[in-house]
Amino acid sequence: MKERKIYLDNYDLDQAIEKYLEDIKEQIQLEVIEIPAADSLHYITAEAIYAKLSSPHYNASAMDGIAIKANLSNDANESNPVVLKKNEYQYVDTGDVITKEYDAVVMIEDIVVKDDESVVLTKPVAFFENVRAIGEDISQMQMIVPSYHQIRAEDINAILASKNDKIKVFKKLKVGIIPTGSEIVSVATKELEAGMIIDSNSSMLKALVLEKNLAVKVYDITKDDYNLLKQVILDATNECDVVLINAGSSAGSEDYTAMIIEELGKISVHGIAIKPGKPAILGSINQAMVIGLPGYPVATYIVFKQVFLPIIDRLYHQSVDYEIVEATLSKTIYSSLKHIEFVRVKLGYVNEQFIATPLARGAGISMSLAEADGLIVIEKESEGYQKNSTVKVVLLKAKEQLKERLTVIGSHDLILDIVQDVINETNKDHAISSSHVGSYSGLLALKNHECDLAPIHILAADGKYNEAIVKEIFKEEKMALIKGVKRRQVLAYPKNNPKNIRGINDLTRSDIRYVNRQPGSGTAILLDYLLKEKNIALQKINGYDFIMPSHFNVGATIKNETADCGLLIKSVADVLELDYIEVMAEEYDFLIYQKDLDKLKIKTFIEILRSQNFKDKLAVFDCYETLESGQVIKIG
Amino acid sequence: MKERKIYLDNYDLDQAIEKYLEDIKEQIQLEVIEIPAADSLHYITAEAIYAKLSSPHYNASAMDGIAIKANLSNDANESNPVVLKKNEYQYVDTGDVITKEYDAVVMIEDIVVKDDESVVLTKPVAFFENVRAIGEDISQMQMIVPSYHQIRAEDINAILASKNDKIKVFKKLKVGIIPTGSEIVSVATKELEAGMIIDSNSSMLKALVLEKNLAVKVYDITKDDYNLLKQVILDATNECDVVLINAGSSAGSEDYTAMIIEELGKISVHGIAIKPGKPAILGSINQAMVIGLPGYPVATYIVFKQVFLPIIDRLYHQSVDYEIVEATLSKTIYSSLKHIEFVRVKLGYVNEQFIATPLARGAGISMSLAEADGLIVIEKESEGYQKNSTVKVVLLKAKEQLKERLTVIGSHDLILDIVQDVINETNKDHAISSSHVGSYSGLLALKNHECDLAPIHILAADGKYNEAIVKEIFKEEKMALIKGVKRRQVLAYPKNNPKNIRGINDLTRSDIRYVNRQPGSGTAILLDYLLKEKNIALQKINGYDFIMPSHFNVGATIKNETADCGLLIKSVADVLELDYIEVMAEEYDFLIYQKDLDKLKIKTFIEILRSQNFKDKLAVFDCYETLESGQVIKIG
Repeated sequence: MKERKIYLDNYDLDQAIEKYLEDIKEQIQLEVIEIPAADSLHYITAEAIYAKLSSPHYNASAMDGIAIKANLSNDANESNPVVLKKNEYQYVDTGDVITKEYDAVVMIEDIVVKDDESVVLTKPVAFFENVRAIGEDISQMQMIVPSYHQIRAEDINAILASKNDKIKVFKKLKVGIIPTGSEIVSVATKELEAGMIIDSNSSMLKALVLEKNLAVKVYDITKDDYNLLKQVILDATNECDVVLINAGSSAGSEDYTAMIIEELGKISVHGIAIKPGKPAILGSINQAMVIGLPGYPVATYIVFKQVFLPIIDRLYHQSVDYEIVEATLSKTIYSSLKHIEFVRVKLGYVNEQFIATPLARGAGISMSLAEADGLIVIEKESEGYQKNSTVKVVLLKAKEQLKERLTVIGSHDLILDIVQDVINETNKDHAISSSHVGSYSGLLALKNHECDLAPIHILAADGKYNEAIVKEIFKEEKMALIKGVKRRQVLAYPKNNPKNIRGINDLTRSDIRYVNRQPGSGTAILLDYLLKEKNIALQKINGYDFIMPSHFNVGATIKNETADCGLLIKSVADVLELDYIEVMAEEYDFLIYQKDLDKLKIKTFIEILRSQNFKDKLAVFDCYETLESGQVIKIG
Repeated sequence: MKERKIYLDNYDLDQAIEKYLEDIKEQIQLEVIEIPAADSLHYITAEAIYAKLSSPHYNASAMDGIAIKANLSNDANESNPVVLKKNEYQYVDTGDVITKEYDAVVMIEDIVVKDDESVVLTKPVAFFENVRAIGEDISQMQMIVPSYHQIRAEDINAILASKNDKIKVFKKLKVGIIPTGSEIVSVATKELEAGMIIDSNSSMLKALVLEKNLAVKVYDITKDDYNLLKQVILDATNECDVVLINAGSSAGSEDYTAMIIEELGKISVHGIAIKPGKPAILGSINQAMVIGLPGYPVATYIVFKQVFLPIIDRLYHQSVDYEIVEATLSKTIYSSLKHIEFVRVKLGYVNEQFIATPLARGAGISMSLAEADGLIVIEKESEGYQKNSTVKVVLLKAKEQLKERLTVIGSHDLILDIVQDVINETNKDHAISSSHVGSYSGLLALKNHECDLAPIHILAADGKYNEAIVKEIFKEEKMALIKGVKRRQVLAYPKNNPKNIRGINDLTRSDIRYVNRQPGSGTAILLDYLLKEKNIALQKINGYDFIMPSHFNVGATIKNETADCGLLIKSVADVLELDYIEVMAEEYDFLIYQKDLDKLKIKTFIEILRSQNFKDKLAVFDCYETLESGQVIKIG
């Protein structure tokens, strides 16, 4: 084993790709193969395809009728019917050959059969009328598609009709994927111990390779053992044209990828100025490209899409086909001048424009891949974008579908996902785009017309939910509150209540550490309300400033005994097997502008809240009351 | 065999789909299967997928460093370093477990190792800093994707990371494709006789099915024999969930499809008010959908895309993801009130807007599928659209790529395809969109700013090409003529010159039938010039009004002895093995606005005309002189 390498390059993305392509250009050649045109979907042509035969390749009747010489019909009209004798016409069906004795076809509807030996015409036909002339569709020697063209279903008909039986295309590169890491285990592992990480990247990579129409092989998970890994990589380079190694691409103590490539082949680039994805490796061993991808899911994804795919596109002479839309940014995002940064965003569509809300930026957040509607690319020269500025978003989903969605910004609850699930089951087109920013920020987004609907649960001083704050913020506007659910909030603590917590008063005890939610969230407001009710000063709560971003994180912190108690919804306490005292049934409702009540997507939303299917699905969680779900209260 | 049916329904498209879905809803059910999530790309979920485990499922270090209790570091700074003893910290690598004794991680870069038993900190860390809390990415019981969601590569990571090993999805429907017709033969058939038609539709259908991510089986070609076809259809309905029968769907004497479906099962719809595609059949036999598609390639395609796919999307609860752009129509299109019509168009992009030029509308023109960039849908209530009106175009290619292309309108020649081929070979992004309307119409399109470049070959009275007409039409504008090629025009006649044609003077002979090109085409103008030169009146030419739309059609008409001679380019005469007299080397050039000479796509175009690769490719055709190719002449 070589010495630990601690240095990474910092190539610009374009520069890295250029250097790599230059370095491998002698070594890596696309192979040309001949395949049946009938099976050529998505292959890329290695040479232009010319018509070997015209289509039609004979003059063909375009109708059922009789073939005649057109000039015999010149004088025919109702008062001067023309009679054709047996040797002057021939019955033809659509597609039949028009022999050189004839030059037009009269439709069967336009002839009167006199007897077996003659027919009568009462109107003329033009020269070549109802005849598909040789080459009408395709002329012999015409170019059907050029070289380096990716074959589509639409091309296949003309390729075959012009008698191209077999065609020359480039072989699909075979991409081998090697998951590595001693902590990485299969998803099928029965009992996952702390420290074990499920191998999810190699299946994502496989799907991405298949989406690119390349061939793929996934290797077994390889432990962090230099010699073992070296052997697997060597085998893979013999079997595949490209080897993707995930992870171990950085410069840590067990990051062997770079060392092994250096030993067996050559590294062109190690370290690219992109975020996430910096510690990527571009190298080669013998005739194979060998690429190291960092291990965090989003970094793996970005290196595949932004580094590997452009390389493949360059090799196959394909241009990029991302769709880009302009959107208004709902939140300022900062970025460093050190790298290009790729930020995943959720897109809403309100008042005919897209609103982009950045998702969690951590490279480990695989949910941000599932949730993202698009990517914002922040160039290296840019420090980021201000709230409300117009940004370009590379779409990850179909634009027309994104436009149809109901845009929801505010407090998150599982019930939004359930509504989406019921929408899908009932085959309605009105999908939901929901961004989670907390109740209060949701109200402001609605005020700024950045969303259609804001889910909120805000307790007022009078002990009632939502209406008071709506009246305060929307003084002039006519609003409507769609009742959602009552959610049971509990004060949760570990099983069997080891610290003997009996109520809110216990939070002031010096041996109790509380865990809170972010200011402005409905749950933090609930705590403030409960403390005020009991005249307890915030300062007395040990942990008032210890903040976790979700009900679940609060629960996990308690479960793990890092904190002693916290407010959260009952369903989370149940899943985590915590004990609790019930505190309040809070009202989680949806605010919209009254004028939107007529919109089809709002109507669908309300209809679903009222449906039995929705209520049945929620019942499973034993946390929600749905008695009022879907009722509408007009405010103002 | 039953009696011949001559009656077709005329259902509106939406109505046809609704009726069919209603008719089959008891009979056709999607099957739910359980598959490994790792192999689930493009499957559609049969139920919502919830997280079975949080990710991370333990508090994990986000850095290499030491795990500590955060509050021990509170007072650390440069002048007050804090020393931690061996039992107060633990070395961790990224991803390692943070046990409940600790609640923060100090990065390796931020510690000073004092000795084996202690480390020194000079700045504080916050609670949970550098720790990935349990559920940071995904909380247990969170919904990852809802039901009826088509799984993307981006979803697979989160599905697996939340320990979903197997998931419930809908089985992919298996689609059987039966090509029928006694005249239909395989593309591999050695000698094609007149009347034989190559089976190209079934391979296109197979590709379309695969693009929709369904399973597929193509059956052998079945002759027009009632009992034979009945058996094949019956077998296919046992093997497949859907059977597509192509063709025989109409009401002709050998159109058996409808009769067989009626005998074995049920027809819901026979005849839909769409063009092309009217004689479509929607039926069922036992548990299989059985669909009859008409035989002309474009009709087959339209019925698949506009009738069959919406049915599939409805069954799987998917919404349509067509992209639509607005475009200016370059030519009036008329349509009947009797049906919805789908018109294929070529799209140019000039001055930041799309220009749509309709392609040949015949249902038999398979090249219009390969060439089309989009579809215009003319609703049943509409009689069509006027030139210059704004129309919505459903895109068939990626929008960003369409925008990058050089828009070419005018006379067509193979050399445009060769330029595209060379562009592709050299991996440049500047593709060409070319529409063929003849030289003169090309000039007008350029005048109206509907294209970037017009290919022309127009002979003036002085016997010179192109410059005179440009000066006449573009009096005020500064133009540039990019020299293309000299094309050898010939007067062609059948092999061995049976009618002993010696020159233009012979065209006046009463036994000679000429075949011409459309007025305004360079070749028609050439004839006029030659006649004028010899003082021959147009009226003296038998066949002056007999018009074919391309050089090739002219040649095929002569080959077939429907006409005796015509003007066309030498390369076509060679391919068709015609004899000829050389008449003129016409100059086929490209007109642009001078200001566009700086544009990258024009520069690329000129560069390619000048390249040896381009000249070599043309040399094969022995028809073109390329001495001046790529020279630029400024006019005005």
